[in-house]
Amino acid sequence: MVIVSLKDTDKIVPQMDGVKGVYKQTPLSKENGAPNFCFRVFTIEPGGHTPLHKHPFEHMNYVIQGQGLMVSDTQETLVNKGDFAYVEPNEMHQFKNPSQEQDFVFICAVPIEFE
Amino acid sequence: MVIVSLKDTDKIVPQMDGVKGVYKQTPLSKENGAPNFCFRVFTIEPGGHTPLHKHPFEHMNYVIQGQGLMVSDTQETLVNKGDFAYVEPNEMHQFKNPSQEQDFVFICAVPIEFE
Repeated sequence: MVIVSLKDTDKIVPQMDGVKGVYKQTPLSKENGAPNFCFRVFTIEPGGHTPLHKHPFEHMNYVIQGQGLMVSDTQETLVNKGDFAYVEPNEMHQFKNPSQEQDFVFICAVPIEFE
Repeated sequence: MVIVSLKDTDKIVPQMDGVKGVYKQTPLSKENGAPNFCFRVFTIEPGGHTPLHKHPFEHMNYVIQGQGLMVSDTQETLVNKGDFAYVEPNEMHQFKNPSQEQDFVFICAVPIEFE
């Protein structure tokens, strides 16, 4: 049994085109022994965003703090603290923080091979 | 892309020995198309608990609300809102809510075959 606080988890700035004002933490990872999937947490600062992209694995999301836009190739949907979201494998998606004040923080769980 | 609110998710009372004051919701499940793992949410009412048991799959937890005790066969650890936890496959574990006032609410993600 392992208990992990986000404040003790390293912050990594993703080096990808289309990323602005984002850092990633992985509180439940291979390093903790997780065999099948992992819990990553993304913080998007005000005005920031992840890339509009797709990949062959799903996202399982939970909004920890703030609110943000989940963008597909056809729509933008506002999500709020407490919402859950599912992004299908190979679905185009982007996360944006339209706020001028608060961070948008969310769990983004993926299969362990895509940690 | 599917957005789900917990307030729109059915509440199921687990029918197991050793369960007291618990209900389960599954906001991200097979029904949403999740292929590999699912997000279940357990609410433990004040004084309630899950069974002290083990099973061959892991738990990946995030505490949404309140605080609780995570019990193994050797220790009890207090977890608070915002904490993450990992329970290994085949590790003895129990979740308890020692509060007299507030619910203990947490995500409990598992491989999809154990939804």
